[in-house]
Amino acid sequence: MTQALLGRLACPVEDVDTDLSQRVQSLLDNKTKPVGSLGRIEQLACRYACIRGELQPAPPRAAVVVAAADHGVAEEGVSAYPQEVTRQMLLNFAAGGAAINAIARSVGATLSVVDVGTKGPTPNGVLERKVTEGTRNMARGPAMTDDEAEKALRVGIELAEKLDSQGVSIVGLGEMGIANTTAAAALTAVLTGSELERVVGPGTGVQGEALQKKKRVIAEAIRLNRVTAESPFQALVRVGGLEIAALAGLTLGAASRRMAVMMDGFIASSAALVAAKLCPAVRGYLIASHCSQEPGHRAILDELELRELLDFELRLGEGTGAALAMPIVRSAVAVLTEMATFESAGVSERNS
Amino acid sequence: MTQALLGRLACPVEDVDTDLSQRVQSLLDNKTKPVGSLGRIEQLACRYACIRGELQPAPPRAAVVVAAADHGVAEEGVSAYPQEVTRQMLLNFAAGGAAINAIARSVGATLSVVDVGTKGPTPNGVLERKVTEGTRNMARGPAMTDDEAEKALRVGIELAEKLDSQGVSIVGLGEMGIANTTAAAALTAVLTGSELERVVGPGTGVQGEALQKKKRVIAEAIRLNRVTAESPFQALVRVGGLEIAALAGLTLGAASRRMAVMMDGFIASSAALVAAKLCPAVRGYLIASHCSQEPGHRAILDELELRELLDFELRLGEGTGAALAMPIVRSAVAVLTEMATFESAGVSERNS
Repeated sequence: MTQALLGRLACPVEDVDTDLSQRVQSLLDNKTKPVGSLGRIEQLACRYACIRGELQPAPPRAAVVVAAADHGVAEEGVSAYPQEVTRQMLLNFAAGGAAINAIARSVGATLSVVDVGTKGPTPNGVLERKVTEGTRNMARGPAMTDDEAEKALRVGIELAEKLDSQGVSIVGLGEMGIANTTAAAALTAVLTGSELERVVGPGTGVQGEALQKKKRVIAEAIRLNRVTAESPFQALVRVGGLEIAALAGLTLGAASRRMAVMMDGFIASSAALVAAKLCPAVRGYLIASHCSQEPGHRAILDELELRELLDFELRLGEGTGAALAMPIVRSAVAVLTEMATFESAGVSERNS
Repeated sequence: MTQALLGRLACPVEDVDTDLSQRVQSLLDNKTKPVGSLGRIEQLACRYACIRGELQPAPPRAAVVVAAADHGVAEEGVSAYPQEVTRQMLLNFAAGGAAINAIARSVGATLSVVDVGTKGPTPNGVLERKVTEGTRNMARGPAMTDDEAEKALRVGIELAEKLDSQGVSIVGLGEMGIANTTAAAALTAVLTGSELERVVGPGTGVQGEALQKKKRVIAEAIRLNRVTAESPFQALVRVGGLEIAALAGLTLGAASRRMAVMMDGFIASSAALVAAKLCPAVRGYLIASHCSQEPGHRAILDELELRELLDFELRLGEGTGAALAMPIVRSAVAVLTEMATFESAGVSERNS
């Protein structure tokens, strides 16, 4: 069924060009510095070059996409904030006052905010791609229909096409949606085979009895909807979210166009996980910006065999961690493409 | 004696404005995000605001200074590279081909390279502030005279004045000098009271017998020169280096002008350590960009009670780690100064 879906989405992902990695490393080894002395910056340069399929890639052009949607499961009281905050934050994004606005500006990344399914009208300045006005309550039945999830995936794929046509080469995944750590935790538990205890956390701040309630709601949603790791698409349909589906589509679309995908926190990473489960070649295109304070994020990074770049104890989402990591990629590419070699600079190599 | 020196340097450092920190945190707590959800980015914003003494500091303007000098102790065979590499790398910096050139450009930091004491003529494009043509061999006697060390400190202080007059608000410490991990390890052992085993590492790549030799040379230099923690200035004179002295002066000068000081790797951090031992108020102005693979770096960060921002397994120096961390500070300040508050954005606060 996954193959049929991928066929319909018409978004083929080639493996990254790992053949290039030896040539990149040997180029880096000839740069005027002790071999390996830029550590993980060299690995990052190598990963980016393999993603782009170029020994000397152009300076990365960065974009962050924030996908927003509401979650029917919010009515179970799984979040510390009321559901109207999703829409209020859309207005805040549109006005330029949210954390991701400030950080994206400071790192020179463009920002697109897309409404894939919030309740109420889409504010000016936000792309309107509403599939439905929020998911249904997963504690009572499937969050989406197959058709809704597929539409949301297409929203992301189309955004990737648009960004590619604008010359963007690295896309940060951002999200906003009250109650979406509940969906992300359900997806993560199922797709990584982790215990709920390991993957359910406070989100924006639930604790004590409310946190226990959140765990029970997720356990019940997984049981009731008979969600298994066999079908990542059905997991997305039944316990996912519209913004998560859109970001999974964005990940697929970006990978199919050889753009790097900068993951953000727990929810954005759950979307990348869905994409990687749908299409394993996606993995090579992923870069982990940070590991959230939300416990399930580590389970995703372990499953994808990724090590995060930053450790800033973030738990905001919106693509903030992804944006913070963009300059690191730019610097890594500059090292690869702008540094002199020992020969070109006339610098002596080490005593043997 | 330290007081007399500081008097002559005429570079008084006031404590950072920690009274401001509660006001900064309460401003951050009212921004449109869950309280504390930007983790260490919030702490960094707070530190920078206290350094500048402003609740709403202007966007940071970043500069990196690379101080270069030769070390007489290189004749003991403590480095994997020949001494002429110091001068070759100066030419490479001047031509724009070194790692720090590429990274400083990519992060929008200005770069100044200053020759405080290399052998041979100073290349065009490098500031000539030569105190001597390299230190003397510390394994046979003091590396410098008191006067030479004081002159090198003044080079750094004058650079800080110049950068301040150009509007720079954050200075990265970079260095180049074959054999300078030997000087840094000697200073670190003495000023942190650490065992040599803990602070002597491979530098650019010595290992096996050569590494044991390096340890013996450092032990002998500390013994012969009777270096103790009592006088950080005499430690600098006897087992330090000209570039380390210049960076210690730059740190003092920057702190006296309320500029933030971004430390880099082991050698640059040993210079910051000297400055903090000369004048404890300096500590509040320091930011640790990363912790080098060189083992002594951790001893310095522990002594200064600093936690590094980045963990990229760097061991290059030149200010590369400091430059890589500059955009993080810029983003932290953007969060503090550009984000909307719950009230201004009309976003609901959390359910209590």
